[in-house]
Amino acid sequence: MNPSNQIKEGDLVLLWFENEVTYLIEVARGKRVGIHCGKPLAVDDWIGREFGEKVICEHGEGYLLKPSMEDLMMKASRESGIIYPKDAAYLILRAGIHSGSKVLEIGTGSGSLTMALALAVAPNGKVFTYDRRMDLPQNAVRNVNRAGLSDYVSFQQRQTGEPIPEKNFDAAILDIPQPWEEVAVVKEALKPGARLVSLNPTFNQIEKMAEALRHEGFIEVDCMELLQRPILAREGKTRPVQRMVSHTEFLLFAIRVA
Amino acid sequence: MNPSNQIKEGDLVLLWFENEVTYLIEVARGKRVGIHCGKPLAVDDWIGREFGEKVICEHGEGYLLKPSMEDLMMKASRESGIIYPKDAAYLILRAGIHSGSKVLEIGTGSGSLTMALALAVAPNGKVFTYDRRMDLPQNAVRNVNRAGLSDYVSFQQRQTGEPIPEKNFDAAILDIPQPWEEVAVVKEALKPGARLVSLNPTFNQIEKMAEALRHEGFIEVDCMELLQRPILAREGKTRPVQRMVSHTEFLLFAIRVA
Amino acid sequence: MNPSNQIKEGDLVLLWFENEVTYLIEVARGKRVGIHCGKPLAVDDWIGREFGEKVICEHGEGYLLKPSMEDLMMKASRESGIIYPKDAAYLILRAGIHSGSKVLEIGTGSGSLTMALALAVAPNGKVFTYDRRMDLPQNAVRNVNRAGLSDYVSFQQRQTGEPIPEKNFDAAILDIPQPWEEVAVVKEALKPGARLVSLNPTFNQIEKMAEALRHEGFIEVDCMELLQRPILAREGKTRPVQRMVSHTEFLLFAIRVA
Amino acid sequence: MNPSNQIKEGDLVLLWFENEVTYLIEVARGKRVGIHCGKPLAVDDWIGREFGEKVICEHGEGYLLKPSMEDLMMKASRESGIIYPKDAAYLILRAGIHSGSKVLEIGTGSGSLTMALALAVAPNGKVFTYDRRMDLPQNAVRNVNRAGLSDYVSFQQRQTGEPIPEKNFDAAILDIPQPWEEVAVVKEALKPGARLVSLNPTFNQIEKMAEALRHEGFIEVDCMELLQRPILAREGKTRPVQRMVSHTEFLLFAIRVA
Repeated sequence: MNPSNQIKEGDLVLLWFENEVTYLIEVARGKRVGIHCGKPLAVDDWIGREFGEKVICEHGEGYLLKPSMEDLMMKASRESGIIYPKDAAYLILRAGIHSGSKVLEIGTGSGSLTMALALAVAPNGKVFTYDRRMDLPQNAVRNVNRAGLSDYVSFQQRQTGEPIPEKNFDAAILDIPQPWEEVAVVKEALKPGARLVSLNPTFNQIEKMAEALRHEGFIEVDCMELLQRPILAREGKTRPVQRMVSHTEFLLFAIRVA
Repeated sequence: MNPSNQIKEGDLVLLWFENEVTYLIEVARGKRVGIHCGKPLAVDDWIGREFGEKVICEHGEGYLLKPSMEDLMMKASRESGIIYPKDAAYLILRAGIHSGSKVLEIGTGSGSLTMALALAVAPNGKVFTYDRRMDLPQNAVRNVNRAGLSDYVSFQQRQTGEPIPEKNFDAAILDIPQPWEEVAVVKEALKPGARLVSLNPTFNQIEKMAEALRHEGFIEVDCMELLQRPILAREGKTRPVQRMVSHTEFLLFAIRVA
Repeated sequence: MNPSNQIKEGDLVLLWFENEVTYLIEVARGKRVGIHCGKPLAVDDWIGREFGEKVICEHGEGYLLKPSMEDLMMKASRESGIIYPKDAAYLILRAGIHSGSKVLEIGTGSGSLTMALALAVAPNGKVFTYDRRMDLPQNAVRNVNRAGLSDYVSFQQRQTGEPIPEKNFDAAILDIPQPWEEVAVVKEALKPGARLVSLNPTFNQIEKMAEALRHEGFIEVDCMELLQRPILAREGKTRPVQRMVSHTEFLLFAIRVA
Repeated sequence: MNPSNQIKEGDLVLLWFENEVTYLIEVARGKRVGIHCGKPLAVDDWIGREFGEKVICEHGEGYLLKPSMEDLMMKASRESGIIYPKDAAYLILRAGIHSGSKVLEIGTGSGSLTMALALAVAPNGKVFTYDRRMDLPQNAVRNVNRAGLSDYVSFQQRQTGEPIPEKNFDAAILDIPQPWEEVAVVKEALKPGARLVSLNPTFNQIEKMAEALRHEGFIEVDCMELLQRPILAREGKTRPVQRMVSHTEFLLFAIRVA
């Protein structure tokens, strides 16, 4: 067995069953987890086993998987809306975010996008995520810690319109209802040539934000949305699935110039 | 000026003009570049300037930008079809690829996906990309080198069905017309629990590949497509753009188990 | 009041409430209808009133509306899948069906498409609808009668591959799982220049049917699908609805030539 | 040959060639038509032949087809934007328009929607179409006449906000840039229970119109869009076409109550 594929204490495991029932479990000594198909399982037994192995339970069988960022995002504990993996992945690539980048996030929310950004900038970059809440956004901190990404995230508290102490960001992501209120201060914090992304669900928001960005001299102000359509691929009966999520967020991109 | 934002010899610059006219230029001493709006520009003049700065040319003005992975992919020199940024970004996130991953790519093509994978695994991971062509795929090598990503890519030549010398891959991407011919050997090369992704444009291919994956014992065989819809966000006149790319590739995901 | 807008015995009324709760009711003397918001209503009271008027019930208020074909289709009693109004409407227009047309339908189902075809050919045309079931398809007969369209429909019983006694059809619609088995006999029944439409949910079916049509000499074999995306239009908060039906049927069109 | 399928003087013929090259031609004595594949054709020769028959020309062969409403709409001569068949077909069905209906159209444009409405209400209904232009909209009149539908259309000239002399309409369609300016007068002209449809390309327009309709007491104010995605159905290579029209109009529906 490849050592990097061995399950250790502290690892996150995605326990996967047919029919897409899954559990995201932190491996700890003495822990037991309740499942849908029989008696609770002893997590102890998984330590030393390999990712990808089968687990037999009372009324079924599952697999011990290493969670992908999609799993972490979809399983994040949250009190608010969700950023979808398709949107997070695309904005990272398009905004020029990669290992070593210094990224600004305005609107921490439940931290699902924060996790995706943190994984993208590791091991040499950092995400500075700002939220208005006086207490740290507890769900976000918990989600980032559980994913083992806390070294790459700095949680900050800050009110709308206040200057951003950090400067020279390679990219900025705004996930707040009124992003136009932050355009001027975010511009100050971005390197010339850096990209800004705003995620908003309504046309009214993207229209207002696009105009604010143009007014502040940003270039290439460009908006799009991604639709994810599931397909059933089965012998002789391949077709699109009958229902889908048809709207998440519009993604608005722009570039700060010197 | 932040030193990391200063243009140096050897840097790649995206010269950006209004109306989405762009040029991807490697900075070199004595180089001149022809443009659409007037006399050629002396690239020498850009050395020491900052990304994000304005360039005045005879009949217009442009900006010196740091290309994002989207720019590198869309500007890749190529002899064949293209992998779109939306597809590359999503498969990276969902297949669990990140800094440090060891990734297998079957079907190098023009290397546009290879670049996105290389950036995702840097600085500690590696992409092993295999192609059937007896010569190295020259466009791909050129694109990867130009992007400064050659440290993270190993180009290999190999015929369909031959064993893959490297083992213990964290993920595998197949971008070939008959991926079902490679399922057995790719399975051998993947760690248990690792994800496989196949990109194919037709339903016939994804149906046949999905059945081959199920037959080889892969789990969570799941297919989807991403549609990218551009939106014009302008004051009082916001609407979807009238034409769009409506099909690129279907993405088929699966997980190898022990 | 315009007499044509007065509610009479035998009329169909769509009783409409806020929150899209609706009831499709045939007006009859002495009838009472149970509703979700209070005591049953006496239908007698509606006779002589006008379409569009308000009805007060115990815990709310509704409106007496004339059902559109969309309402009739979505409220059709049925034992099987549904043809969506978007698909029915488009195929009627594109297949050249209009008042006076003689239309062949293979696969009566629950009669929802039959109703749309009947309304389109009225008052001088006719729909001949064939089903394999030995008994008349009771739901379809009931739906067509209730909609007041029985003068324009002839229900027929017939097994796959049997000749079609009627000839000189202006258009043919196939809504059956294996339409390729009927191409030769349907061709015989169509006028030269007439259009054929096949509705099928899987790619496998449309591919096989497209090849069968080409093989029988049909021209302009052309396939598409329609996606209906709901939009929430509200002041300051306009956006696409978050979930939608993403797949109903593929529509395959072709033209019989001489 | 079925007499109704015989080509006569005055008929409209769609001359169809492979590769989707088509010509819409009115049959007249002595007429010759230039085509893309060789010498002009003598239309005289078609009289007495049957729809669906083959025509041999110098460098190819074509077919003589009866145009569907889709053909008439896509081939309409026009000076402005186009209403797409998918949108026209669906709004007719959903607005309760059928043979015998009395329909109001505000914004005649090039008459492509007018034709579809006229065919839907024939032979006992009528479309009253209003335009602001002081001259009759010549393209629209020509298109409607050529389609043989002039008995079912009354062209009217009228300025925004002026009362509509006709009353008791079964349905109203607004295809104008500022439909909210007409809500009050259109409401007066509609029967209680009748449906109104507004077609507009921007979110700003549908949002403003939706609010105006709610303000005037319309119920079931509901918006959607239809996306038409072409599919290539070919043996072993079936897939969506790579480019599509991604936006035409938003359709906004509402019901006038008493």
